[in-house]
Parts: sequence; C-alpha cells; structure tokens
Amino acid sequence: MNKEIVLTGIKPTGKVHVGNYIAAIKPALQIAIVSDCTALYFIADYHGLTFIQDKEEYNHLSYGIAATWLAMGLDPERVIFYRQSDVPEIFELNWILSCLTPKGLMNRAHAYKAILDKNEQLGVDMDSGVNMGLYTYPILMAADILLFQSDKVPVGKDQIQHVEIARDIAEGFNRNFGDTFKLPKYVVDEYTAVIPGLDGRKMSKSYNNTIPLFESTEDLKKLINKMKTDSTPPNEPRDPDTSNVFLLYKEFATPEQIQELRNKYLNGISWGEAKQELFQVMNDYLEEPRKKYNELMGEPEQIDHILFEGAKKARAMAAPILEKVKTKIGRYR
Amino acid sequence: MNKEIVLTGIKPTGKVHVGNYIAAIKPALQIAIVSDCTALYFIADYHGLTFIQDKEEYNHLSYGIAATWLAMGLDPERVIFYRQSDVPEIFELNWILSCLTPKGLMNRAHAYKAILDKNEQLGVDMDSGVNMGLYTYPILMAADILLFQSDKVPVGKDQIQHVEIARDIAEGFNRNFGDTFKLPKYVVDEYTAVIPGLDGRKMSKSYNNTIPLFESTEDLKKLINKMKTDSTPPNEPRDPDTSNVFLLYKEFATPEQIQELRNKYLNGISWGEAKQELFQVMNDYLEEPRKKYNELMGEPEQIDHILFEGAKKARAMAAPILEKVKTKIGRYR
Repeated sequence: MNKEIVLTGIKPTGKVHVGNYIAAIKPALQIAIVSDCTALYFIADYHGLTFIQDKEEYNHLSYGIAATWLAMGLDPERVIFYRQSDVPEIFELNWILSCLTPKGLMNRAHAYKAILDKNEQLGVDMDSGVNMGLYTYPILMAADILLFQSDKVPVGKDQIQHVEIARDIAEGFNRNFGDTFKLPKYVVDEYTAVIPGLDGRKMSKSYNNTIPLFESTEDLKKLINKMKTDSTPPNEPRDPDTSNVFLLYKEFATPEQIQELRNKYLNGISWGEAKQELFQVMNDYLEEPRKKYNELMGEPEQIDHILFEGAKKARAMAAPILEKVKTKIGRYR
Repeated sequence: MNKEIVLTGIKPTGKVHVGNYIAAIKPALQIAIVSDCTALYFIADYHGLTFIQDKEEYNHLSYGIAATWLAMGLDPERVIFYRQSDVPEIFELNWILSCLTPKGLMNRAHAYKAILDKNEQLGVDMDSGVNMGLYTYPILMAADILLFQSDKVPVGKDQIQHVEIARDIAEGFNRNFGDTFKLPKYVVDEYTAVIPGLDGRKMSKSYNNTIPLFESTEDLKKLINKMKTDSTPPNEPRDPDTSNVFLLYKEFATPEQIQELRNKYLNGISWGEAKQELFQVMNDYLEEPRKKYNELMGEPEQIDHILFEGAKKARAMAAPILEKVKTKIGRYR
C-alpha cells in the first residue's frame, strides 16, 4: 500500500521566534515522526520572491529557515526536505495549470481581495503594489501540492482557500483531460494554546514582544528578565496558571519540573527566581539547537547538500507525475 | 565577438497554408541562411495550451508545425530548433519574472484588453473565458526572450507590444537587482505583398479561401482549378499583374518561367492553361517538401530527435543565464 502523502510548505519569513516554534514547527516535526506517512517539507523560497526582492534578505531568510528546521530536529532521513527552487518540475506544472485556471478564480482569492480593499481605502489604483507573483501565487501553490499527488496539506486557517483552489484546479484538469490528479485535503492545525510574549499578549512580531529562537544565552536571559509580571511581593504565593512566565516554562520543562515549579508558585517564589527557572529550562532546551543553527549558517554548503539530496528524492517522485500530465495534454506522440 | 541572437517563436496553429508559407515561413528561413546570427526558432507548444485544450489537436498541431518548418527547409544544423516544453528553464524564469511584473502591466496588454471589450459588448463577466495562461502569456513570452539574452525578435505588428513588455520586465529586473538582462528589440516583418486566395481576396483562414501547403497533388489541382478568374475569353490577351493566378505563380516560378508566362498572358492564354502552369510550378516546388512532411508525420520520433537535440543546445545557452539570474535574486550563498 502506498503511504499517505503529507505536504507542508515553509515560508522564509523573518527571524523565527519561540511562538513560531511552539505553534508551528514543533507540531509539524511531531507529525513527521508519529504518523506513518510520506512527509514532504519544502522551503518555499520562490514564493518568498513575491515579497522579498532584496538579494541579502532573500538569501539570509531562505538559508535561515532551513537551518532553523534542521536545528530543531527535522530529520532529513525521515522527511523529504527540499527547496522549491531546486525542483523545476513545479514551475513547468505551474504553467500548465495556469492554462486551466479561469481568471475569475484568482479574482476571488482572499489575499488578493484584501489588497484590493486596502488600495480602495487608500484611494490608489486597485492593482497598486500587486506583482503578478502575488496575484498568481495560488496557482504555484496548486502546482506545489498537485505535483506530488499530495493527500493532505496541513495549513493555517488563512491558507484553507488556497488548498480549495488547488482542488478546483485539479478538478478542472481532470474534467477536461481525464482522471489525473488526486484531490488534496487541507488539515487545519488545531493548536490553539496562546504562547505569551514579553508583554503577556500573544507572542507576535507585530506586537514586538517576541523571544527569538536562537538568541544568545546572555540576550535570552535579558529578554526573560524583561517579561511583564504582576506586583505580587516576593515569597508570596502566586497563581501559576495565569503567569506568562509559567505558561512558557511549561513548553520547555519536563512534567516533573513543571510539577515542582507549580508547587513553588503556590508556596511563594519571587518573580526573579521564577524567571531564572524559565531561563534555565529554555536555555537547556535551546542550547544544542542554537549551536547547530550557528554551525549550519556558518557552513551553508551543509544546508545545500541536505536540501539537494531532498530535491533529488522529490524530483524522482515528481517526474513520472509530470510526464503523466504532459501525456494527458497531448505533448507526446 | 558574440553573434547577434535572433529569436523566433512559432505558434502551433491550424493547417499551414500557402499564404503563411510565403509571408512568414519563407522569409524567416531566409534570415537564418543569410544573416550571420545565432538563430533560435522554437515551437511555442505550451503557449498553444492557452487555446488548445484537446489532446489530439494539441499533439497534431505541435508535431505538424515542426514537420512543416523542417519540410520547408529549416536546417537544424544552422538554426537552434527546439520545443518550448523541452526547456524547463523557461518556466522557472517565468515565475521569477512574474514576481517582478506589476499587475498593471498585464492589464494594459492589448490582447487582454480586446477580450475585455468583447466581453463588455456581450454583457458577460469581464473575465469570462479568460484563463490565466492567456492573461499571463506576455510574461511567458518575456521569459522565452530574456532567457537567451536575445538581441532581436522578429514579430508581426500584433506582437510588438509583447516585446515591449519583455523590455519593461527586463528593465524592472535590472533596476532592482543590477544589470542582468539584455534589452531585446523587435523587428517588424516588412513583407507586405498580399498573397491572393482562391477568391482573389487575401489568403486567410477566416475567408475560407486557402490552399493548404501540403495538399495532395490531386487536391492541389482541384483547388487551383477553382480559383476565381474574370471572363476574358480564351486566347485573348490578359493583364498578368492583376491576375491572382499569375501573382501566385510568381511566388513559385523561376525568373525565366515568370517572363515566359508573362509573355503568354500578353499574347493570349486560356485560364485553364494558366492554371495548369500554376499547378505545375507549385506542385514541382512542393512535391519534395510534401513527401518530407508526410514522412516526418509518419515517424514522429524523427521530429522528437531533432527537437531534442535543439533543446540540448538551447538549454546549454540558457542554464548559465538562469544561474546568473538566481545569483542576483539571492538564491545562492
């Protein structure tokens, strides 16, 4: 029996923070280990080109995100880990699918409509600031997915429509040329716990309250000391379940450690001490990954090697599917 | 010194007729022989997918147009002759350029605007019947051109804007990432002689008055006999320069034959005889190409072999240029 194919795209966005790790990277790595599937994880670097048009930034973010996942435990023996731009078959399929995609379908994409609304409010031309990569991105995403006959695509809620568009495009192709593509399903990430940031609100770049994942030991300590706490005097009992410091601690500590610190909270502990405990578990947890990350970023050829090996596996899967598609449209005699 | 690069795209449209040959194919083959340039001629089969979404038709037209050019004398030793779909680098560049193309540029493309006007007249949705391949086609054409650092692109008048769009996209890329692409120039085909069809009007599929290029001897004879003539009685003098039959004769006969027939016209000749002379020169001219065409269509692996060898040469030219582009955007460490 063929295993189920699960495909996950990784956008090369800015510095990864602890909230990203807990909410997205950790569960994704878990899936790859736990479930008996063929897991494809790819760095969507050419997707990044729609919004990063600076050489240094593009380069740093693409390598950085690959190094991050590897440092946090992605096992390239277990997961087919590749870079989108190393798989030219995706872009050939992207063109083929373009010809089968009604323009109306793109006009209805949420992300594009959101830009139109914004431009209307600003009173500028409706397509101001829109490049064709942004506009046609849902077709590229359909190619990313359909090229591997993916069964499942884990996504955040904002990406559900894109998987639906991929289904629509696949159905349109199948209707016209006969059964060819599997129809992919989205899986919405059920992770709902809120990871608190430095100020107690959800950790998010837009709140400027994040703890970067690979901060140095010293800076990590400084950041944790800056976390907002209430004015409970030292040695007085405090509620662990409403404390940011404790909530974050739970993500990195063992069950025994958690129980122990909970007791300390209930019996009285100073915030300074609580923060020191948090720093200790986080630093222990992240020390090795941080080393690994810095090592990889210092030797990018290691990253290239891993991604290139992954691309070889991905291309071996993709090539016969692309050939099938080309046969259906009439390319071969 | 590097030779000038001249790039010509060949659309796989319906049955090629004598008018197409004289106005487009013959002059293009002449350029490749006469001028000291690197000539790239390609079958734009993936462009065809924007309007041919039937397996058999796509297949027949793609192979048919390649066989036509080869049969009419295209020398694959002299011209780099390839099929667009055999050069994946084009589609990767197509995506990169998409990210650098403002959507407004596509909205201003004549071909798209013509569809909008038609839809408005019909009172249907503005994007009705428009697929994304049609809409984004100017970007693919820019990739076709820019991937080879083409100097010149011979085009019909309707395609001038597309070459201008390719220049705009190249300039935008160069501005953002530094000098990378050569700016291509269009060359408008100056061939203005009108090739008369069976009814005396310009030979055109839309008038249903064409002589297909590879009609059998019998059918060619029948078609020529159907040509419209005036009622000058047999053996009376007639003006060669206003006769369709003579105008067509001039395209296939030698200067001596032309002079000889001119004299016959002036001295008196029946239309039947004049048509017989036309049939004779056309059939002589087309007999070998027709044989060659039928032979190639019966052995499509010959066509594949030629196009594949051409694609190897084209890819060898394209690969370092694509690498340069990828370096500029920040793909490599």
